[in-house]
Amino acid sequence: MIADTRTNAGVDNISSYRKLHIYKTPGERILAVATAGNLSVTQTALAMVAEGVKLPDANAPETLETAPTLFRAAQILGHALATVRATINTPPSPAADALNVNASMLLGGQIGDGKMGLYLIYGQGNFIECGPDTPFLQIGELKYGKPILDRALHNSTPLSEAVKIGLISFSSTMRSNLAVGLPIDLVTARHGQSGAEVVQRIEPNDGYFAELSRRWSEVINEACRAVPRVPFGPPA
Amino acid sequence: MIADTRTNAGVDNISSYRKLHIYKTPGERILAVATAGNLSVTQTALAMVAEGVKLPDANAPETLETAPTLFRAAQILGHALATVRATINTPPSPAADALNVNASMLLGGQIGDGKMGLYLIYGQGNFIECGPDTPFLQIGELKYGKPILDRALHNSTPLSEAVKIGLISFSSTMRSNLAVGLPIDLVTARHGQSGAEVVQRIEPNDGYFAELSRRWSEVINEACRAVPRVPFGPPA
Repeated sequence: MIADTRTNAGVDNISSYRKLHIYKTPGERILAVATAGNLSVTQTALAMVAEGVKLPDANAPETLETAPTLFRAAQILGHALATVRATINTPPSPAADALNVNASMLLGGQIGDGKMGLYLIYGQGNFIECGPDTPFLQIGELKYGKPILDRALHNSTPLSEAVKIGLISFSSTMRSNLAVGLPIDLVTARHGQSGAEVVQRIEPNDGYFAELSRRWSEVINEACRAVPRVPFGPPA
Repeated sequence: MIADTRTNAGVDNISSYRKLHIYKTPGERILAVATAGNLSVTQTALAMVAEGVKLPDANAPETLETAPTLFRAAQILGHALATVRATINTPPSPAADALNVNASMLLGGQIGDGKMGLYLIYGQGNFIECGPDTPFLQIGELKYGKPILDRALHNSTPLSEAVKIGLISFSSTMRSNLAVGLPIDLVTARHGQSGAEVVQRIEPNDGYFAELSRRWSEVINEACRAVPRVPFGPPA
């Protein structure tokens, strides 16, 4: 899971906030949550989850540390997200106060012997699970970085290569849109390890990431030249 | 200028309509107009322009065939676009009837000895001109196809190469979003030629375009492998 840290309330109000959160009980569970959308909504929802959320069918509040399954963790996050959004929207605000309360989350990881999974949780609290037909999920400013994932990321892609492709996707997005920016947070986990394999923050001065962006521009330009010439195109 | 032909009113109502229109007086002018957004708005605006638009400072209606300059042609299109949108929005509709009347246009070409230019016309009628700092303009579903343009298209790119890069951009967009699709219309023009150099429709069965998409996937995957391995990444 990869997340940038940029948030903005207009181009004159840009800040850095962590949007990738890790919850772990060594040997028992590793959960990663990435957030997108209205920061006050996602922060409040995560704070609410940390205090414990009582689902309609439960007798006691639950947290990401106590949820027995990944599916239950998705329900807890979805319930918190929907609750926060409903609170902000009630009573209906006058137009001048209208807020964009859109928000979404990714939840990935493994609990106990359960299977490793990845969920996309919508602002209304419903969610979908990543499956074999589409080997990735995205939230937030996703369009710029989607073509490279569509072309290069497969279920058989080795994890180290997948991380590289993910970083290329972020590099493409950052180049085209100021609303996404360094530092980037990164976490990888493998089925059965019950822990994070890599937890890394890529800072603005990171040498590898700068080199990746530069090299990607080079190879993209080479790739363009490698594609056959347009047969019906202009002469030069 | 490149435009696809797909329009949709929901995924169960997809049709093909030409969105690239050419206006020419051989030896005197070549104008190309691409449209995006609400099809009823752009079609009505173009029909209005064909009948003649009387600008506030003019004594008689003008068309794209009579406009003395490219700037004037942009004003005519902008006025028509804004007028149509205002008409549809007046009186304010009940929410159930609310329409997305967003629409925009690209206008490019040359009139007489004037300089060749390219304008992006917004739905409100205002417009911006393409300049040396940003060698391209996009309208519509633009995010998926922007990273390749940002990386590969420069002011010094030969026209034949620029067409190829444009088609790669469309190929990326079509792969990631069903709302963009073949056929694609394509026109190129050069300063001082007062005519179109290439006018081409790329049909769904076009062999070159299929090969371009296939080759692009290949070279993108090769390009990913060519980028150095993530030093802090997982082992494999």
